[in-house]
Amino acid sequence: MAAETKKIPYKIYLEENEIPTSWYNMRADMKNKPAPLIHPGTLQPLKFEDMQPIFCDELIRQELDDETAFIPIPQPIQDFYKMYRPSPLTHAVFLEEALGTPAHIYYKFEGNNTSGSHKLNSAIAQAYYAKEQGLKGVTTETGAGQWGTALSMACSFFNLDCKVYMVKVSYEQKPFRREVMRTYGATVTPSPSMETNIGRAINAEHPGTTGSLGCAISEAVEVATTSEGYRYELGSVLNQVLLHQSVIGLEVKTACDKYGIKPDIIIGCAGGGSNLGGLIAPFMGEKLRGEADYRIIAVEPASCPSFTRGKFVYDFADTGKVCPMAKMYTLGHDYIPSPNHAGGLRYHGMSPILSQLYHDGYMEARTAEQSKVFEAAELFARVEGTLPAPESSHAIRAAIDEALKCKETGEEKTIIFGLTGTGYFDMTAYEAYNDGRMTDYIPSDEELAESFAKIPDLGL
Amino acid sequence: MAAETKKIPYKIYLEENEIPTSWYNMRADMKNKPAPLIHPGTLQPLKFEDMQPIFCDELIRQELDDETAFIPIPQPIQDFYKMYRPSPLTHAVFLEEALGTPAHIYYKFEGNNTSGSHKLNSAIAQAYYAKEQGLKGVTTETGAGQWGTALSMACSFFNLDCKVYMVKVSYEQKPFRREVMRTYGATVTPSPSMETNIGRAINAEHPGTTGSLGCAISEAVEVATTSEGYRYELGSVLNQVLLHQSVIGLEVKTACDKYGIKPDIIIGCAGGGSNLGGLIAPFMGEKLRGEADYRIIAVEPASCPSFTRGKFVYDFADTGKVCPMAKMYTLGHDYIPSPNHAGGLRYHGMSPILSQLYHDGYMEARTAEQSKVFEAAELFARVEGTLPAPESSHAIRAAIDEALKCKETGEEKTIIFGLTGTGYFDMTAYEAYNDGRMTDYIPSDEELAESFAKIPDLGL
Repeated sequence: MAAETKKIPYKIYLEENEIPTSWYNMRADMKNKPAPLIHPGTLQPLKFEDMQPIFCDELIRQELDDETAFIPIPQPIQDFYKMYRPSPLTHAVFLEEALGTPAHIYYKFEGNNTSGSHKLNSAIAQAYYAKEQGLKGVTTETGAGQWGTALSMACSFFNLDCKVYMVKVSYEQKPFRREVMRTYGATVTPSPSMETNIGRAINAEHPGTTGSLGCAISEAVEVATTSEGYRYELGSVLNQVLLHQSVIGLEVKTACDKYGIKPDIIIGCAGGGSNLGGLIAPFMGEKLRGEADYRIIAVEPASCPSFTRGKFVYDFADTGKVCPMAKMYTLGHDYIPSPNHAGGLRYHGMSPILSQLYHDGYMEARTAEQSKVFEAAELFARVEGTLPAPESSHAIRAAIDEALKCKETGEEKTIIFGLTGTGYFDMTAYEAYNDGRMTDYIPSDEELAESFAKIPDLGL
Repeated sequence: MAAETKKIPYKIYLEENEIPTSWYNMRADMKNKPAPLIHPGTLQPLKFEDMQPIFCDELIRQELDDETAFIPIPQPIQDFYKMYRPSPLTHAVFLEEALGTPAHIYYKFEGNNTSGSHKLNSAIAQAYYAKEQGLKGVTTETGAGQWGTALSMACSFFNLDCKVYMVKVSYEQKPFRREVMRTYGATVTPSPSMETNIGRAINAEHPGTTGSLGCAISEAVEVATTSEGYRYELGSVLNQVLLHQSVIGLEVKTACDKYGIKPDIIIGCAGGGSNLGGLIAPFMGEKLRGEADYRIIAVEPASCPSFTRGKFVYDFADTGKVCPMAKMYTLGHDYIPSPNHAGGLRYHGMSPILSQLYHDGYMEARTAEQSKVFEAAELFARVEGTLPAPESSHAIRAAIDEALKCKETGEEKTIIFGLTGTGYFDMTAYEAYNDGRMTDYIPSDEELAESFAKIPDLGL
C-alpha cells in the first residue's frame, strides 16, 4: 500500500466510480464465527426455511452466509446509492483547532440524505430484495426514527407498502419524523399499540409504558407474519445489516488509501451495531487477517450499556419473544432504557458479530452519559457546522476524549469516527440540553440483575 | 467554450480548488443599474455614512458597488465555504424517468448544511465583516428560519452575539428551528415582540398579528441601531446578498462547462431574490453581455406575488418604515401574506437588482399555488430522495411543468433549477398536506389595491 502524498482536502469526496460494487462480509475472516440464531422452542440453529415467514429469501441467504467475503451489490441498489453516496470523509480541522490537539481527526458523515443517517444503506438493499421477491410490502420498527424514515424512502422508491411501528416515546418526541415517513407513503403506528396481540399484552402488563425497540420489533414481526405478501425488515443487529453497512467502511478505506491516511483509532456509536459494524468492516478485516492493527472503540449510552455491562448469552431479540434468539451482549430482553434517554441506541442487545469480536478482544467499548454527549454535540456543531444526531454524538464524545489525551501526551494519532447522522429531528432533546433540563441515568446493578434474571438459561 | 465529453456523473461534485475565490457582481454588466436605496426623509440616494449606523462598513461598500465585476472572497470565508461547499449539481434522472420527459433536468442542491439552505453563503460573509469591524454582535430577522439559523451558525463560528427576530407564525410552526439557533448560541424572539418600540406599535395596531418579515426587519434594525457595537444583517433583497450568493451560480457554471452541459432554462424560487440572484448570476452576466441566451424563470407563491402582481416603485423595505426605501416590485410594505402560507417567500418586495432585470425583460416570472407546490415536493421527495423545502419546491413545480411541456413537444431541453434547501423543519406544512388540510390563497385585486394605496407616491 504505497501511501500517495496528495494534498488532503477538507472534505474527501470519492468519485462515483469509487463507490463500492460489493459489500464486505467480516464473518468470512472471523475465526470464531458469530453464534447462529436459534429457535426459542427447539433451541436449534435456524435454517433457511425457519426464517422464511419472517425475512425475504435473499436476505436470509446473506444472514446465514459466514463464508463469502465479498457479495456483489445489485445494480439498482448501486444506482440508488449514487443519489447520496459517496459520503464525505471530512477532516475536522476546526474541531482540532478548538481542542488544541495534535491529533488528526476525521469523520465519515452519513447524514447527507433525508433519512438523516446511514440507515438508508441497508434500507434500500432490504427494499430491493423484497421487491425482487414480489412482495406487497414490509413491516418494521423504529426507535429514534432514522431507520423508519430510511425504509419509508426505500419502499417509496420501489413502490412497496411500508408499515412502521415507532417506539412511543420517540413518536411523541418526534412528530416531524412521522410526517417525513408519511410523506414517503408509509403508515406509522406508536408502539406498543392496541393493533397487535403482543402490543395489547405489553400495554396490559406495563400500563403507560413509553415503549422499547424490543416491543416495536415484536409488533412489526407479528404483523409481517400474519399478513399475506409481507415480510419484516430490521435496521440493525442482524448480520445482513452489517453487511450492507460495510459500504461506509469500504469508502473510508478507499479514501484513506487514496490520501495516505493511516487511522490509529476508529470510533463508532453502538446501539444495535449497524453503523459501527459498517464503519469498521474493512479495517476489522485487516485486523482479523493480521495485516494491520487498529484500536476500535464502541461507544454506548450509559443508560443502555449492553457491551460494557451486559451478559454475553443467548437472549430473545425482542420483548415479545416472537423473534429468534441471538447470542449477544444483552441487558435482558425486558430492559427498557429510562425515558429521559434521548435519541436511539436503546436496544437491549448488540449485533452478534460485534458481540463475538468484542468477546474475542478485537475491540473496546465504553459508555458516555448523555449530558457529556450533548456537550460534545454542541461543541461539534459550533465549530464543524453540522448539528449531529444524539447517537452520533457518542462517537464525537469519545473522539474528543481521545484527542484530548493526545494533547496531554503530544501524540499525533489519527482518529476516525462515524458521524452517522444529523440531529434535525432531535431538537426536543437539544431543547432540554439548552434549557439545562437534561439529566443522566445509569441503571443500578440491582436494576440490571432484575433484568438479567429474565434471560432464560439455555445451558448453551 | 469547448464542451468536453466527460461522462456526467449523477451528482457533480467539483474539486475543492474549483470553489469560487471571487464573487460575481451582476451590476457591473447591467446597463440599467438597480435604482439606489434612498432615505425616506430626504428622498436622496443613501451614501456610505447614511448606512453606517445600520450596516457593517465593508458590506455597505459592496452594497454601493455597481462597477466591480469580481470581488475577492476573503480567505476565512473561503475556508468556511469548504465546510459545506462545493454543493452538488445533481442530474435528476429519477425525476426525468417518473415524468417520462425527454428534458434533461439538473438541480443545484444547497441544503447539505445545518442551516438547511443556501443562506449560509451570505451569512458567513456578513458575520466575517462584522467580526473584522470589531463588533460585538449582529441582529437580524428570520421568516421560515433558514436565514436565522445560517446567521446563528456563522456568528457562532466567529464568536459574535446574534439576536434573531423570528416572524411569529414561523416561530410557532417551527419550534425546532428556534432550538437549532439556540444551540448555536443565538437568542430568538418572536416578532412582533413587546421588546421594541416598533414591535409594541405593531402589536397595538394589529392585535394578534402573526407577524411578517417586514415587521421583524423593523425590530431587528431598531435593536441594532440602538445597541452599542451591533449592526443589522439581512439575508436577502440587498445587492450585497446577491453578490455573496453568486457562489451558487459560479459553481453551476463551472460544472456545466466541465461536463458540456448547456442550460436552456434556469429556474429559481423568489422571495427576496437571494437564491435566484445567486443561481443566475454568471448566466445573466453572459446574457447582459450578449454572449449567450437563457430563459430565466422566477417562481413566487400565488399568495405573495411581488413580481407578477406588484408595482415597480419606491417603497419602504420594512413595515415599520425604519429602513431605507428601495425601488423594487412590491405589494406594499404593509402586505402580510395569509397565515395559511407555509414556509418562506413571504417578503412584500423583491431584490432591486432582479426587479430591474425583470423590468428590462431579462427574465420571466410566474406564480404557483402551494397545494401544487407540495404536490411537486412530494413527487420529488419520493423519486429523488431529498425532502425539499417548501420554498425550493416552487422551483421544482416550474421545472416539472417545463419538463412536461417538453414531453408534449418532444424537445430535449436542459433545465437547471435551484434546490435551495430541505424541508426538515417544515413538517407542520407537510402534515397539513398529508392530511389534506392544505389550502391555497390568492389575494384579491381589492386586497392588493388597498395595500398599494399605502405606498407613498414620491414622484420618482
